[in-house]
Amino acid sequence: MAGLTPSLENLIDKFAKLPSVGRKSAQRLAFYMLDSSDEEVNSFIESILNARSTVHRCNICCNYTDDEVCTICNSKERDRSVICVVEDPRDIIAFERTHEYNGLYHVLHGVISPMNDVNPEDICIKELIARLSDNEVKEIIMATNPTVEGEATSMYISKLIKPLGVNVSRLAYGMPVGADLEFTDEYTLVRAMEGRKDI
Amino acid sequence: MAGLTPSLENLIDKFAKLPSVGRKSAQRLAFYMLDSSDEEVNSFIESILNARSTVHRCNICCNYTDDEVCTICNSKERDRSVICVVEDPRDIIAFERTHEYNGLYHVLHGVISPMNDVNPEDICIKELIARLSDNEVKEIIMATNPTVEGEATSMYISKLIKPLGVNVSRLAYGMPVGADLEFTDEYTLVRAMEGRKDI
Repeated sequence: MAGLTPSLENLIDKFAKLPSVGRKSAQRLAFYMLDSSDEEVNSFIESILNARSTVHRCNICCNYTDDEVCTICNSKERDRSVICVVEDPRDIIAFERTHEYNGLYHVLHGVISPMNDVNPEDICIKELIARLSDNEVKEIIMATNPTVEGEATSMYISKLIKPLGVNVSRLAYGMPVGADLEFTDEYTLVRAMEGRKDI
Repeated sequence: MAGLTPSLENLIDKFAKLPSVGRKSAQRLAFYMLDSSDEEVNSFIESILNARSTVHRCNICCNYTDDEVCTICNSKERDRSVICVVEDPRDIIAFERTHEYNGLYHVLHGVISPMNDVNPEDICIKELIARLSDNEVKEIIMATNPTVEGEATSMYISKLIKPLGVNVSRLAYGMPVGADLEFTDEYTLVRAMEGRKDI
C-alpha cells in the first residue's frame, strides 16, 4: 500500500493475524507501537515473554497457573466432588464471574475435531480420567461449547466416564436470559421447547 | 480475578492498554500469546522491534519511512505544487486509497491542543514552513480532522502560510456520501447548507 514501508506492512500483517483484530485495528496498533516510548514497548514485550515463561498448565486440572497446582485446585473451600469440564481456560473466568459454582474445573484445551486433525489424545482427556481414580469425584459437568464439535467431545468423554460410576451431566440448552424470542434461532428454540420445565 | 495468575493478569492489562482493545479482546489476545508457538511469538516481537528500529520520519514530509525520504516525496509522478496536510500517517493511507489525489503530503503528528499541553512547536509545523521556501508549492490543502482542535490547528497554520503567498484551502464539510439526512447531526447539516452548490 502506498505510504507504508515494508517493516510497517509486516507489523500490520502480524497484528492482523491476532484473534479479533481486523485490518483497521491492526493498522492502529502498529502505529501505536511506533509512537510509544521504548519503555512502554519493552514492558509490553517483557510481559508477553514473562507470561510465557512462568505460566504453564496446572498438574491437576490443566488450567493455566504460575505454580505447580492452580489456586482453585489448591483451595480448601472448593467442593471436590464436582468437576466442570471446559474447552478453554477463559471459560473458567466466565464461570468464576457467576460466583455460583464452587466445584473444581478441568480444561481440555480444545475439542475433538477430525476435520482439524485434533484427536482425543491431543486434548487433556487422560488427565481428566486420572482424576477420577480416587473415588472423590461424584459428578462431572460437561461444559463444552454448544457446537457440533463441543457436543461430540462431550459425548465421547461421557462414554469413557460413565463406566467408572461417576455421574455425568451437561449444561442446559435454552433461551439466553434477556433474549428476544423473535431473534432466537430455531435450533435454540427447539432445545428450549425440549427442555421445558413445569412452573 | 479467580483463575488468573499474576503474570497473565499483567499481560491482559498490557493488551487492554492498547488502542481499540477492550478487556475481553485483551483476554483473548493474552491467551493467544500463551497458546502460540515460540516461533510465532518471537516473529511477532521481532516485527515490533524491527519496525521501531527501521521506521523513522521522512526528512521532507514527516511521514513514516524506512529510507531518508519516503516513496511519495521521492516519486517523479507526483504533483509537487500541492501539499495535503494531515494529522497522522494513517490519514495518508486513507487518501491514497481514493487513487484521486496526486500531490504531496505533510504529516503534523498531532494537533495543537493546549488542554493536552501540545503547543505549535510540538508538532511538525516548522518542517512544513521550510518546504515552502523554494516557491514550488502553490497550494496547501489543510486536511486536519473536523474537530475543534483540528480546526484551530488548521487556522493557525493558514495564518502562518498565507503571508508567504501560498494558497491555503481546506476539505469541504457536508453530508458523507451514502448518509441518511434523518441521522445526520445538526452541525454537519448547517455546514452542508452553507457549502451548497448550484446544480
